[in-house]
Amino acid sequence: MQFHLEGFKTGDPVIQQPNPDASALADSDSLPEEVDVLIVGCGPAGLTLAAQLAAFPEIRTRIVEQKSGPLQLGQADGVACRTMEMFEAFGFAERLEKEAYWVNETTFWKPDPVTLGKIARSGRVQDVEDGLSEFPHVILNQARVHDFYLEIMRNSANRLEPNYSRKLVHLEVSNEAGLERPVTVHLERTDGGHEGETETVRAKYVVGCDGARSSVRKALGRELKGDSANQAWGVMDVLAVTDFPDIRFKSLVQSAGEGSILIIPREGGYLVRIYVELDKLRPDERIANRNITVEHLIAAAGRILQPYSLDVKEVAWWSVYEIGQRLCDKFDDVPADDASGRLPHVFIAGDACHTHSPKAGQGMNVSMQDTFNLGWKLAHVLKGLSEPDLLASYSAERQAIAQNLIDFDREWAKLVSAPVKSDSNPDGVDPAAVQKYFVQHGRYTAGTASRYVPSVLTGDGTHQHLAEGFQIGMRFHSAPVIRLADARPLQLGHVNKADGRWRIFAFADRSDPAAETSAIRRLCDFLQNDPSSPVLRHTPEGEDIDAIIDLRAVFQQDHRGLRLTAMPSMLLPAKGRYGLRDYEKMFCPDLKSGSDIFDMRGIDRDKGCVVIVRPDQAVAEVLPLEACEALSSYFSRILKRRA
Amino acid sequence: MQFHLEGFKTGDPVIQQPNPDASALADSDSLPEEVDVLIVGCGPAGLTLAAQLAAFPEIRTRIVEQKSGPLQLGQADGVACRTMEMFEAFGFAERLEKEAYWVNETTFWKPDPVTLGKIARSGRVQDVEDGLSEFPHVILNQARVHDFYLEIMRNSANRLEPNYSRKLVHLEVSNEAGLERPVTVHLERTDGGHEGETETVRAKYVVGCDGARSSVRKALGRELKGDSANQAWGVMDVLAVTDFPDIRFKSLVQSAGEGSILIIPREGGYLVRIYVELDKLRPDERIANRNITVEHLIAAAGRILQPYSLDVKEVAWWSVYEIGQRLCDKFDDVPADDASGRLPHVFIAGDACHTHSPKAGQGMNVSMQDTFNLGWKLAHVLKGLSEPDLLASYSAERQAIAQNLIDFDREWAKLVSAPVKSDSNPDGVDPAAVQKYFVQHGRYTAGTASRYVPSVLTGDGTHQHLAEGFQIGMRFHSAPVIRLADARPLQLGHVNKADGRWRIFAFADRSDPAAETSAIRRLCDFLQNDPSSPVLRHTPEGEDIDAIIDLRAVFQQDHRGLRLTAMPSMLLPAKGRYGLRDYEKMFCPDLKSGSDIFDMRGIDRDKGCVVIVRPDQAVAEVLPLEACEALSSYFSRILKRRA
Repeated sequence: MQFHLEGFKTGDPVIQQPNPDASALADSDSLPEEVDVLIVGCGPAGLTLAAQLAAFPEIRTRIVEQKSGPLQLGQADGVACRTMEMFEAFGFAERLEKEAYWVNETTFWKPDPVTLGKIARSGRVQDVEDGLSEFPHVILNQARVHDFYLEIMRNSANRLEPNYSRKLVHLEVSNEAGLERPVTVHLERTDGGHEGETETVRAKYVVGCDGARSSVRKALGRELKGDSANQAWGVMDVLAVTDFPDIRFKSLVQSAGEGSILIIPREGGYLVRIYVELDKLRPDERIANRNITVEHLIAAAGRILQPYSLDVKEVAWWSVYEIGQRLCDKFDDVPADDASGRLPHVFIAGDACHTHSPKAGQGMNVSMQDTFNLGWKLAHVLKGLSEPDLLASYSAERQAIAQNLIDFDREWAKLVSAPVKSDSNPDGVDPAAVQKYFVQHGRYTAGTASRYVPSVLTGDGTHQHLAEGFQIGMRFHSAPVIRLADARPLQLGHVNKADGRWRIFAFADRSDPAAETSAIRRLCDFLQNDPSSPVLRHTPEGEDIDAIIDLRAVFQQDHRGLRLTAMPSMLLPAKGRYGLRDYEKMFCPDLKSGSDIFDMRGIDRDKGCVVIVRPDQAVAEVLPLEACEALSSYFSRILKRRA
Repeated sequence: MQFHLEGFKTGDPVIQQPNPDASALADSDSLPEEVDVLIVGCGPAGLTLAAQLAAFPEIRTRIVEQKSGPLQLGQADGVACRTMEMFEAFGFAERLEKEAYWVNETTFWKPDPVTLGKIARSGRVQDVEDGLSEFPHVILNQARVHDFYLEIMRNSANRLEPNYSRKLVHLEVSNEAGLERPVTVHLERTDGGHEGETETVRAKYVVGCDGARSSVRKALGRELKGDSANQAWGVMDVLAVTDFPDIRFKSLVQSAGEGSILIIPREGGYLVRIYVELDKLRPDERIANRNITVEHLIAAAGRILQPYSLDVKEVAWWSVYEIGQRLCDKFDDVPADDASGRLPHVFIAGDACHTHSPKAGQGMNVSMQDTFNLGWKLAHVLKGLSEPDLLASYSAERQAIAQNLIDFDREWAKLVSAPVKSDSNPDGVDPAAVQKYFVQHGRYTAGTASRYVPSVLTGDGTHQHLAEGFQIGMRFHSAPVIRLADARPLQLGHVNKADGRWRIFAFADRSDPAAETSAIRRLCDFLQNDPSSPVLRHTPEGEDIDAIIDLRAVFQQDHRGLRLTAMPSMLLPAKGRYGLRDYEKMFCPDLKSGSDIFDMRGIDRDKGCVVIVRPDQAVAEVLPLEACEALSSYFSRILKRRA
């Protein structure tokens, strides 16, 4: 955490100085007529985007929401390891670690082979494999995740606050050439004293994060395609007394004849979420889902848990939903067959373009990754760093990820809901197969298996062998290091903040990095002085040398064996109005703890390598330390030359 | 972190529901005429006490401060490991870990033996020995520590806010018997619009945390005794450019002829604190300390750092002070020779009763431990759990600790300020001796060596051999464990929250804890059912079974080998209005990581043991698992029987 660069400031360092341009402040009750980005919907996707854009005071962002205020409870609660890594970039992962339930192990229960009508534990597995992430898989009320994002927005220079009670009435995109703000949005206020008042906002970009019934999607004429309802489930958050021994473990319970439940323990030590399969409700309870009450859910859960008791004392929230796996063809406003070179101005994200069952705990996570992907791209274009065609990559990248999710979810939902194999039902599913599928897909559900295919943004893997543990197209997999200047142990991945910057991690070869001829010094000299250096080419005049591309070096030597001041000056850059040195660019392996990042991530010790990481933490490319031209070429494809 | 016990609540769980009794709310601009506790002074000692008492809605606490608002910068900044453990109990250690500078290694510099007038690094040591604490030694602006305490107070049921701009005019203690509020305090307001207005507050207890010039101390007629000034130092927080390679390490630099400086890197990556010895200022600069400017300090630091440069760009704060080691005989209002059995009603804490140099980084830390010791005792007495004579132990315990600190500091300050040994000065101090002293006293400066001597509160060590790693009279030394009910890895010591409760840690022997005859079951049965059980004797009617004494069990077996529901019911207690089960009472060793708490803390595996921990995290006693009578007897000496 760095602060005081431009002078000492008192108070909480996460609270930014307010934008001196008062017109940029975004905490007013009414909407301005013109904005850069209008976000529709204050769910996880919308808030991730708003928090990301709030990092850039020069971008005018507003976010509107149909509901009258912030979410209080219910809905999504699963936070995958990968999402925690993103939260770390936003600065609040440690708060989730503290407040949330940790999914440490998952247990599986099936019909007791001995006693008819009872369940017995059939398996118990570690939920996340060792070393997959430095973060746990946790469970926390979605409303609290919203709170953390809202706090970031509130603390930003523009003091961004959502405008609630706004209904989207109409959205139109003009095709007129050269129009600065081609999207016009008409909104209607629904809050007391303002009912029926309309507002018209012209935006450069609009992002629909407004859920499965998305008005923005409808305005684009896009639709969710797929099965809209093939299974019905109930869900309830309860405070209950039970003698079921695994009530504090995530547990999948499959009974012989009463259906299945999924138990998700919740934060605070007492609350538990129970998903109840409704197809197996007794016929007299099944009339129609709309007649189902929470008492039906409680009774069903009680029957499935036999011989254990379930005494529900309070229901905090409950709902009934029908599972459907549905997907849009494209996540922006440009038709797939449009050959005119038209550029996207409206995007949809999250449930607005892909829906699926909640039981793999993926929904909130994938939705937030959607807009984490989009956020930096919008910022790059709006700040003039990239050409607008960068934005086409959003739909291309995220639609493929969503398709994978739909495929996974369809299979998983089927397995969980299928009748249990038994003598009387030999075609049923063996619970052991369910457990096996769960373990096999652990990396997927942790969110760490997502991979972008080769493109302008993503390398083709030519030099992947130099760092097998940093898979191109996948998220940067953190590992422990020691910072050279102050011997602080930390996670290297945690330097990847949600600040819209690119990072070049230069992993040195075995030689002395201070030597005049070392590969790392040659790389630094190139980046600092060569006319074709991407740092020089793409960093706007007057900004710090790491403002766009942030170089970090990792050496193989023990941190006590290196001389800080003998290192290339690019790694001790002078920054800010005082030219203060930034001492946080150089790292060494954490040899004392035995966690050598070079071994952990399969880095070629003889050759070293360069790893390019996108602002959304995805590994963009792996290159040899000497491949200066390829490094320049990569950035030239994405970033404009400075004016 | 447990919440929702009395029903689901939305929002941030650390924000308590406001006290339904509006008269208890403590955020008003004016002071009430009657309080339980009046704290004078919003420094670290006062705020620790206020935050502690804020945990008890039934106690009417107010805190006043002479300054016009919260501290913004400067002064103390060292936070020892032991203090971080206490901050964890208050719930904000992770925020310091994130925001603060970590003191990982300390370096030592002495006159270069080769080149006259230059310095050279003579040593480099790990700052905190491995395994000493689960927390780092950190540096953070004292004002930020205040902020965290103020937030706890603000979030408490009574919404406690300090009353600033209050000058203590007069304090008197009545000797009249049976008076409920024997202390009368007269205050004068100094804030705009209220200048000169006086307020009179009658209190049961008053605590003077009002610094070295304490008005409360003076009102008691006590004085600080010792050397008031034997060495002069300057201190400055600066943003500077330097080529001194250890500018991000805590460094003690002793020059040949220009004196010494101590470098303390600060939070945020750029700021640094420099302590400058002033006795070695050039004669023309020494006229009198009151004439010293920050330019003198900068010039002196620059000379000492030769051959390295120091280009100060901004001074955030600076000060000149004279070191003195001074101490009060007693920390309350009862004369040492009073044989009347009079009970204390006024206390002094922190700098009000002990002052010393800042260079060992102890001041803020010891001051906060003063009031962490006092807080639970005041709460016990005010809640009727203990007799008022418990309060006499505050002065007895903390005065001895302060005496140790004074002794340590006198020696350390002497070493640091002494001329460096050289050919021309053979009587000087060898820098190697300074480094040796630093390492030898690492546990002391980390705050983990403090020990209370045997007393009513502290056992005499008869059974210490059952758990050598939990030293009686010292702080509970945490170790990793796995929680049985949900397999969560955590630090056992982190269950010791600042909630005024006692904890009994029952470490089981090797046998199956679920067995009918196991020692742990017999202990649980005793605690749950026996008329002489301290839990039954001292827990007020209608309160949860763990409201006063919180039993936790640690088993030797792997967590997957034990059956939760077969355990003694005392370890799955029903709590709150719903009788919800508390699943957080049982733990197992973290065998997978190889950190077996039984080995780490030297616990007798054949016999097991009981460790009693006070509400301030000090180990009170170690007893055999079977020593039910001794357990009862311990608590009977401190806690009243329930009415």
